[in-house]
Amino acid sequence: MKKILLASFTFVLSFHFFAQDNDTVILRKIYDYYLTQSKTYSNLEFLATKIGGRLSGSPEAEKAVQWAKKVLYEAGADTVYLQPCMVPHWVRGKVEDCKLISPKLNLNKKLAIVTLGSSVATPVNGLTANVISVNSFDELEKLGTEKIKGKIVFYNVYFDDKKIRQGAAYGEAVVYRAYGASRAAKYGAIGMLVRSMTSNRNNSPHTGNMKYDTTVSKTKIPAFALSYLAANELSDALQKDPNLKVYLKNESKNLPDAPSFNVIGEIKGSEKPNEYIIAGGHLDSWDNGQGAHDDGAGIVQTIEMIAMFKKLNLKPKHTIRCVCFMNEENGLGGAYAYAKEAEVKKLKHITALETDAGGYTPRGFGVDTLNGMHKLVSKFEGLLKPYFIESIKPGGGGADIGPLGKLGVPLIGFEPDTQRYFDIHHTADDTFDKIHKRELELGAAGIGSLIYLIDKYYK
Amino acid sequence: MKKILLASFTFVLSFHFFAQDNDTVILRKIYDYYLTQSKTYSNLEFLATKIGGRLSGSPEAEKAVQWAKKVLYEAGADTVYLQPCMVPHWVRGKVEDCKLISPKLNLNKKLAIVTLGSSVATPVNGLTANVISVNSFDELEKLGTEKIKGKIVFYNVYFDDKKIRQGAAYGEAVVYRAYGASRAAKYGAIGMLVRSMTSNRNNSPHTGNMKYDTTVSKTKIPAFALSYLAANELSDALQKDPNLKVYLKNESKNLPDAPSFNVIGEIKGSEKPNEYIIAGGHLDSWDNGQGAHDDGAGIVQTIEMIAMFKKLNLKPKHTIRCVCFMNEENGLGGAYAYAKEAEVKKLKHITALETDAGGYTPRGFGVDTLNGMHKLVSKFEGLLKPYFIESIKPGGGGADIGPLGKLGVPLIGFEPDTQRYFDIHHTADDTFDKIHKRELELGAAGIGSLIYLIDKYYK
Repeated sequence: MKKILLASFTFVLSFHFFAQDNDTVILRKIYDYYLTQSKTYSNLEFLATKIGGRLSGSPEAEKAVQWAKKVLYEAGADTVYLQPCMVPHWVRGKVEDCKLISPKLNLNKKLAIVTLGSSVATPVNGLTANVISVNSFDELEKLGTEKIKGKIVFYNVYFDDKKIRQGAAYGEAVVYRAYGASRAAKYGAIGMLVRSMTSNRNNSPHTGNMKYDTTVSKTKIPAFALSYLAANELSDALQKDPNLKVYLKNESKNLPDAPSFNVIGEIKGSEKPNEYIIAGGHLDSWDNGQGAHDDGAGIVQTIEMIAMFKKLNLKPKHTIRCVCFMNEENGLGGAYAYAKEAEVKKLKHITALETDAGGYTPRGFGVDTLNGMHKLVSKFEGLLKPYFIESIKPGGGGADIGPLGKLGVPLIGFEPDTQRYFDIHHTADDTFDKIHKRELELGAAGIGSLIYLIDKYYK
Repeated sequence: MKKILLASFTFVLSFHFFAQDNDTVILRKIYDYYLTQSKTYSNLEFLATKIGGRLSGSPEAEKAVQWAKKVLYEAGADTVYLQPCMVPHWVRGKVEDCKLISPKLNLNKKLAIVTLGSSVATPVNGLTANVISVNSFDELEKLGTEKIKGKIVFYNVYFDDKKIRQGAAYGEAVVYRAYGASRAAKYGAIGMLVRSMTSNRNNSPHTGNMKYDTTVSKTKIPAFALSYLAANELSDALQKDPNLKVYLKNESKNLPDAPSFNVIGEIKGSEKPNEYIIAGGHLDSWDNGQGAHDDGAGIVQTIEMIAMFKKLNLKPKHTIRCVCFMNEENGLGGAYAYAKEAEVKKLKHITALETDAGGYTPRGFGVDTLNGMHKLVSKFEGLLKPYFIESIKPGGGGADIGPLGKLGVPLIGFEPDTQRYFDIHHTADDTFDKIHKRELELGAAGIGSLIYLIDKYYK
């Protein structure tokens, strides 16, 4: 008995070492591929500079769908699907104008603003009103109708620079961008301004989606973000002249919902073709920049995963999918359509990974503890650490894979270093020149390696 | 007995938890300080943009010494010393010129070059010669005098993009920059060109020091780096016309060694004033850029450590020193002077930390296993991990603390993310606008926190 036990123990050990050793070799090949042969960077150059900003419903978003289909086929996908979805169709319009007017301070000055996504337009001739600055919803509510009626509410809420993760500062501040208009309209405000969601002290305003909550107020007021420096200027001027006025004018339109698509490229699994491992980003972007980091990076990283399996002749056991989701920025139309089909057709998803935090140098993954996924991925820590995947945290997610999570699919979020992300997030500065080739490739390689390992070891 | 043991166990446990808990609170204060009040960023702005490039022996280096002295006093150092050292005094001169001349290819074209530090000048009218391209010293030796005599040797050695750490690629390639001239002169070469030490495909040449080894060749030939793109151009042209010529001209001078200083600011230890914990970077930089990442970042990060202890009223047990080393780039005059004094005066150094890999987002520390230092620092892993110090690797060092290491002092190297470092290293592009405020501050806070913990727990 003792002998048998020892023998089987030795077998297990040597099998284990063989597997790890072999994985080390394959990971090295995967990284060599991404760093020296992959099209990650050149694909992003095309998407960002030749197609550019691609808001849901726009002609550019449609071009991006056709481009992704073509590039997924070129990457070697067995099949590429266009999965229909409906998306909001919001159009910014040509004019966005803001002036700070104070005869007392001898000011009649343009301020840098951008209309928030989903916002209605001002009246044709714009609107001019006094401004009331608040630092929180509490403060807004204390002021009430008496102080707010007929005015423009300015949410002058800073990013908390003490937060180590910029995403945490964003999470705190973004509620004002998202829900501030209806909360202000409830007390009779006629316009809404919010300080841009950033620590970056420059003059580029950050857009992003906002939502009218008609249960809070039936009145839809126009909503804008001021650049960091414009917000400072308005804030300073208000100290000196609380009676100053601001002129606002924009021409945005909410058109009827439009048809669009997720683009799905897959490699059929050799052993379990009906079990899916997916990774993706979002194909749409805001219209004011090129959507390079947000989320062109995620798109090209996960498209390249398909190319990597094919070029290295790695045959996955499960079906591997790259999902280019449509409409993350203002509606999640694609995310819901994907989850709906998965639910209706009872498609078994082993895991879903999202990359939507920029193409920056990798730090790690956040991984759901569900179905032992975090436990499994933690076993790869030693393999991934030499490649700067240094943190495998429990708990993962992402906006586009969120609806799959509700169906019980374990979620994984790719976590790059995001100190620079909110400098350019949703601005005209989210352009291809901000992409660092090696950082983008290291992120892509980390994602590709993780998906390779999950496919190999998931039971 | 059982009861007593249990009691003491409980005591140890609760002491441990109290200590950790208290450390958590203090680390949070340290990070708050760096992220919201520190002068790390504004100090670097001054050093990089108002003083600028500061090669050893230059008037700018002298200005930097005086500036560091002033800023260390302002930071609250009890004492600031100027520690004398001798440094090489190399001057670039005004003209640096390179032309690719090929009648066959109808080319007479300027190529972007920079003279390597310590290089002699060409003859007054420059030199013109055929070029022989090699990929290694082996290849050079095989060609021998017959093929090399009278020519310019071009070390066309690429960074290995497969290396995950750019520093590893640098380590492989830099031997050609450092030792290539004498090795080529041995076979009669009259000039030396090297491909810039970078993966960055642009037209900025990267300087750096070179050394003449008179045991290899008594002849000193002028030595230059070509930009990445210029190296490509020369390499391509050589394929088509091996008889092309290159014209080189520069005016650099090696003047007699000059006196200079390390700048040392310290806070006297409350319990062990004669035991030193030091952290530093180097004050000198190359002359062609502003020395912002290399190593203005390290200087302001470690100066701020002094300010942090003072502002937060943390009284160190050991004497804490910020050491601004002079002459890291081309001689280590300051490093040797510091170690010499430590040796002669028998100054007990607990540890020496160096930050000289750029002001990028932190990843961790490399820590000597000597005297249990790595073991000690590993205990802080849980405290530091939330702040993106995710890797505490055994083995640490740095050029300026190297001589202390030889005296048996455990060394620590701060390790930021360096994917972007070799894009701008030793080029005209190493300027303040490449510095990211939060990344710089997070690095500084990591260093400050580690020094605080070592001072507290080292026995």
